[in-house]
Amino acid sequence: MTLTAELKRVKFSTKHNKRITMIFYQLFESESSTYSYLLACEKNKEAVLIDPVLETLNRDQNLINTLGLKLKYTIETHVHADHITSASRLKEIFHCKNLVSINSKVKCADVYLKENDVIVFGEEKLIVLETPGHTHSCICLKNDSMIFTGDLIFIRGTGRTDFQEGNAHKMYKNIHEKIFSLPDQTRIYPGHDYKGIPFTTVELEKKFNPRINLNISENEFVEIMSNLNLSFPKKIKESVPANLNCGKLEIQ
Amino acid sequence: MTLTAELKRVKFSTKHNKRITMIFYQLFESESSTYSYLLACEKNKEAVLIDPVLETLNRDQNLINTLGLKLKYTIETHVHADHITSASRLKEIFHCKNLVSINSKVKCADVYLKENDVIVFGEEKLIVLETPGHTHSCICLKNDSMIFTGDLIFIRGTGRTDFQEGNAHKMYKNIHEKIFSLPDQTRIYPGHDYKGIPFTTVELEKKFNPRINLNISENEFVEIMSNLNLSFPKKIKESVPANLNCGKLEIQ
Repeated sequence: MTLTAELKRVKFSTKHNKRITMIFYQLFESESSTYSYLLACEKNKEAVLIDPVLETLNRDQNLINTLGLKLKYTIETHVHADHITSASRLKEIFHCKNLVSINSKVKCADVYLKENDVIVFGEEKLIVLETPGHTHSCICLKNDSMIFTGDLIFIRGTGRTDFQEGNAHKMYKNIHEKIFSLPDQTRIYPGHDYKGIPFTTVELEKKFNPRINLNISENEFVEIMSNLNLSFPKKIKESVPANLNCGKLEIQ
Repeated sequence: MTLTAELKRVKFSTKHNKRITMIFYQLFESESSTYSYLLACEKNKEAVLIDPVLETLNRDQNLINTLGLKLKYTIETHVHADHITSASRLKEIFHCKNLVSINSKVKCADVYLKENDVIVFGEEKLIVLETPGHTHSCICLKNDSMIFTGDLIFIRGTGRTDFQEGNAHKMYKNIHEKIFSLPDQTRIYPGHDYKGIPFTTVELEKKFNPRINLNISENEFVEIMSNLNLSFPKKIKESVPANLNCGKLEIQ
């Protein structure tokens, strides 16, 4: 399927200031502290699920059914190293399409996303921003008031840059050019939080992010990132191959 | 301090349909799967913190400071058996007042809440509903669009009723009379969720709660609750005495 057929640009009426509120659930998977995001159009119930996790497949399936939603797309913000996606399982169950960055090495997706693609579900939309840094294939997804940043920027932190073609220079550039350039009140919904905080804003991170606020230079940031001394992700050896396969686990 | 001095009824202007959005953070403590709720007036930054947890004191203190909030009250939905409140520590730090139900045996609170009390912070307010069932001193807190239910009703579940004067008959009556009577779209924010789901609605629980939906009789509910066979809460022996003391830990 071509991008043009799958991803349409839509114009919203400017006659009505007040749009119907989007259905929005921030979901948490405790083992990897991953946030998945279920978004849906209040009107026609078409839904997308950002970064679904295999461990919470049953929960997500039940929630989608309980809410009467039609899952149209799963979207990966990147090829994860800490958990396995439930994308292929959700596709089997709901006949949705699996979306991932065109820059990834994933071969099994239905749609490959690139800069400025618009993902439409009912009257809602998400715009794709290519934001390499944590990995080469990282993307963010934004609408008028919120941005889903995956592992690019966290609440008072950032993703790590020490594997999967991570690059602190690219991360710095993308956070400055594509996140810090957004309106101050834009809400940032990250791919993880390890302290139980749900979201942050562009303004708060520009001021208070200890790694990458407006007063930290690119060189200082690169220095910080090269001295994190993080332990290797426990599940990377199983997660990356599985996620390159849309979460399908090979028979041993 | 008397209730009348502390808890004022306020009238909101009806001239403006659109109110400024309340600052609202749902915060998660992973050891006891507790949700704390930080609510604040966007205008004057006065804040309340519902069910704060000792383990996340530093996180909450930092967040309150980062957001530039003035913590006015901590509010306990009940005397918890699974975690210790940070109420007294927050009072030391922020000089806020500790609020708890008048039906509790807590002696150290600053304000004792009863039915229909209105807790005011800036232009925001929360109304107190007495809802015994999980414990004798349980309360819920509601505004126009959301209700914080503590351990009365959970997402597709309820609090347990087998200790601290728990009573399944009272729980049934209070869920029906004080929760299911609210508008369908009222959002329910519970005191815990063990699956990583953030909220539910009155409509969803009336339809899909397996323990207490509109098709389950009082006798059936009491039968369900008496056969849960739950293990005793791990931290009850330290939590209840500490929480009766506003979270102050006695010197051993």
